[in-house]
Amino acid sequence: MSDRPALLIMQRHLAPLTPFLESQWTVYRFWEGPPVEAQADIRALVVAGEFPLDKTLIEQLPALELIACFTSGYDGIDVDWCRARGLPVTHAPGVNHEDVADHAIGLILSARRRIAEGDRSLRTGGWTPDSKVITPSLKGQRLGVVGLGAIGQAIATRAEALRMAVSWWGPREKASDWPRAASLLDLARSSDILVVACKADENNRGLISPEIIEALGPQGLLVNVARGQLVDEAALIDALKSGRLGQAALDVYEDEPTDPARWADVPNTVLTPHTGGATTEAVQGMLGLLMQNLSAALAKQPLVTPVRD
Amino acid sequence: MSDRPALLIMQRHLAPLTPFLESQWTVYRFWEGPPVEAQADIRALVVAGEFPLDKTLIEQLPALELIACFTSGYDGIDVDWCRARGLPVTHAPGVNHEDVADHAIGLILSARRRIAEGDRSLRTGGWTPDSKVITPSLKGQRLGVVGLGAIGQAIATRAEALRMAVSWWGPREKASDWPRAASLLDLARSSDILVVACKADENNRGLISPEIIEALGPQGLLVNVARGQLVDEAALIDALKSGRLGQAALDVYEDEPTDPARWADVPNTVLTPHTGGATTEAVQGMLGLLMQNLSAALAKQPLVTPVRD
Repeated sequence: MSDRPALLIMQRHLAPLTPFLESQWTVYRFWEGPPVEAQADIRALVVAGEFPLDKTLIEQLPALELIACFTSGYDGIDVDWCRARGLPVTHAPGVNHEDVADHAIGLILSARRRIAEGDRSLRTGGWTPDSKVITPSLKGQRLGVVGLGAIGQAIATRAEALRMAVSWWGPREKASDWPRAASLLDLARSSDILVVACKADENNRGLISPEIIEALGPQGLLVNVARGQLVDEAALIDALKSGRLGQAALDVYEDEPTDPARWADVPNTVLTPHTGGATTEAVQGMLGLLMQNLSAALAKQPLVTPVRD
Repeated sequence: MSDRPALLIMQRHLAPLTPFLESQWTVYRFWEGPPVEAQADIRALVVAGEFPLDKTLIEQLPALELIACFTSGYDGIDVDWCRARGLPVTHAPGVNHEDVADHAIGLILSARRRIAEGDRSLRTGGWTPDSKVITPSLKGQRLGVVGLGAIGQAIATRAEALRMAVSWWGPREKASDWPRAASLLDLARSSDILVVACKADENNRGLISPEIIEALGPQGLLVNVARGQLVDEAALIDALKSGRLGQAALDVYEDEPTDPARWADVPNTVLTPHTGGATTEAVQGMLGLLMQNLSAALAKQPLVTPVRD
């Protein structure tokens, strides 16, 4: 056993963090088998915040001092429960919200201007001398932003440069340049495009309900760059198949990776594999915060970016 | 024979204009066979400006009074030659430049953030628990705009909202918010993304030469929303295959429709079927100008939007 503090990385797609973390700590990787021999030594968990974190596991780690989320979101973690055990949670806020907003704009353009579909069609011989695809202009399209946090504001700013008319809804009033709808249902009714950009927690699961999807309607486009659990995905698929919803452009899903078979016969979709916030620059920033929070916690120093709510 | 003035539509993909034009005029359609019986009656040609217009045909139409371009561009028409014959040319300026700019931004996002590729990959099972696609942030990417006309300026404005650093080049200095490079080669050398947004004519065919493509380089992205003839397409394909150019995102091609086989083994491309300016709103605006110019010419009134250069 090393005398360096021991960490446990929980999710397999975080494996690329290993060499960076090994420069200072002893690293265990959960998917290689629970580290029974190191159970008493693990002092921090490194997690992706969108995955449910197993409380039973935490209870079996007596030396645990920190839950360190690599991500900005931490919806998979019961922060109150951790707090009650004296276990702090850190995350990586303010690093990738503009990249996520860029991705949302890319999804809107790809869906409305039929870019992903045009690319597929051209490659398979769909462009002929007498075919002409006409798409809707973005000008004047009414964009409804669900959640005007850092991501939502960055989306709204970009949408204005693209001549869209922005409004928003969130549970709390806040000062902003854009009008707040009276309710989420009102926002959906008065929007051509609805972008989900809010934080997910146990209270807003299924926020984009069948009623909201119906209100967005046959010409409407639903975009989700937040969390899959915010959308009733079965209702979404049903509405797309029947034409009661026009289009969907998704970067996040109820289960990730999502099963491609689930989408095979669902029309009018653009689907990306949760890449919205994963830019080279953002990942470097998130890694930096992760390393700083781990160093601080294990040296009993103040945490750099603790979860505050 | 009708006593209404006769028009001839040249390109098959303009066929949807027929019912609108037939509301006022007798309409012939070139692809249904040259209208030999109406040769002496044709008073206007309705054309898409990107296709070469046959001078021999024009010489065989003694009653011709107008070449009416449905499009903004008119690079297929020898305007000087027409002028020398006393034959005016009209087009549809200022209608779709912002839609073309939106499309250029959509192509940049789709290429850089791998949206079209991510969509293809997800649908074919490429998203697995240990895969994680990391893409470059748009933040700080240096965007070089070739041609700072209406389209180029609209692209530049949008790029700033996406945190890119804009510069440009064109043959003539003009007042603008962005620095002009000393030459096109300098612009390519100092850009991460080069967007072709200039007018095409006989003097700038192949403007994006092998040297310019090399200067943009292995990390560079070439975007073309202007005309295919502006890019040396064979050199572009060769550079993409060998990795000397990073990516290309194209809406226009040397030949249209482009042959999909030409692109089958060319990596790192996003390809759309010349849909950049073809929005519902723009097409309505272009149709309006077309009808106004036809009415004016056939009533010997001043033209609404004649080609002026």
